[in-house]
Amino acid sequence: MRLPKTLEKISEFFRRLPGIGKKTADRLSLYLLQMPQEDLENFSQNLKQLKTTTKKCRNCLNLTEEDICPICQDEKRDQSIIMVVETPLDLLAFENGQIYEGVYHVLYGKIDPLNNIGPDDIYLKELFERIKNNIDQLKEIIIATDPDMEGEATAMYIRDKIKEIDTEEKLKITRIASGVPIGANIEFADYMTLKKSIQGREVFK
Amino acid sequence: MRLPKTLEKISEFFRRLPGIGKKTADRLSLYLLQMPQEDLENFSQNLKQLKTTTKKCRNCLNLTEEDICPICQDEKRDQSIIMVVETPLDLLAFENGQIYEGVYHVLYGKIDPLNNIGPDDIYLKELFERIKNNIDQLKEIIIATDPDMEGEATAMYIRDKIKEIDTEEKLKITRIASGVPIGANIEFADYMTLKKSIQGREVFK
Repeated sequence: MRLPKTLEKISEFFRRLPGIGKKTADRLSLYLLQMPQEDLENFSQNLKQLKTTTKKCRNCLNLTEEDICPICQDEKRDQSIIMVVETPLDLLAFENGQIYEGVYHVLYGKIDPLNNIGPDDIYLKELFERIKNNIDQLKEIIIATDPDMEGEATAMYIRDKIKEIDTEEKLKITRIASGVPIGANIEFADYMTLKKSIQGREVFK
Repeated sequence: MRLPKTLEKISEFFRRLPGIGKKTADRLSLYLLQMPQEDLENFSQNLKQLKTTTKKCRNCLNLTEEDICPICQDEKRDQSIIMVVETPLDLLAFENGQIYEGVYHVLYGKIDPLNNIGPDDIYLKELFERIKNNIDQLKEIIIATDPDMEGEATAMYIRDKIKEIDTEEKLKITRIASGVPIGANIEFADYMTLKKSIQGREVFK
């Protein structure tokens, strides 16, 4: 004996989501029983139309319900700086901090040969096309892929390709800083992070 | 700037579920974009009908799509033993183990005066009614509320009330054992658990 049929199907669906195990899925499903019917119906409606309403921005590939996303449309953003990120969640992390005034390009992944993801499997072609077409308006490309092995390899690949496009070396190509996270304990930092924190040290004014 | 509208609404819904914060909600919502449209529609359909199809068993209050749940209908189960549990998830935990052959009674909570939950706010009246009506067929009531303060208080309340009903003392009233969990380290167990583990010690055969 498990849950009643409908609940069981809902729990099975939850279990397919990342990071949700059997017990959590059951707990979430049962919780839904206490929610107002109206809220469940609105949620259902949103789920149904999710994939048709949500598109990728024609310019930067960020998720949007319009052709061009609000960031690319925003005249206050500096269109001469493109930050390359792996996922829309990475973009969101920077946006939540309100620490960046340029625009983005979302790759939807990183080069990962072990998992059979090559340069053509992510939105790299679109990035290079965009840089090529706008080279006169661009000043800087910030590469903000994850500082892990695949992210580093992707960053290097992007850097080399941009250099091929930007033969006059007009563009500044930068990489986000790595080091000990703010608020963390140095004693718990790993060797590579500490090494980066020394290599990237700055004059302390 | 946050997520596109539909995604944002989906993320807001997820955030209302227990244990799901903003970042997890965002991650789950974005994951949905990769799922087949058909699966999203099936899930939507199940959500819509969840509250109408899922009812409480007339006998034990377990969740079911029928009038009487499969456990109460099962002729192989011992109807003379009732295990009283707080929630359908607790019932499921025992059922997953396939370690219990009797039937259940689900309270949907515990007596918790600090949160204004009294005996009338959970399905206790139904339990006592059921015991009264079936006293001749019943042999044992196992009280399996949580071994925390409110669960203990609820267990004592149930025990005293059953004694009032069962004036001839026909029924065995038992409480699930507490002690150091199997596989755990004694060194990390708390004082109360250790005390229980000594009080409840058994002859080691």
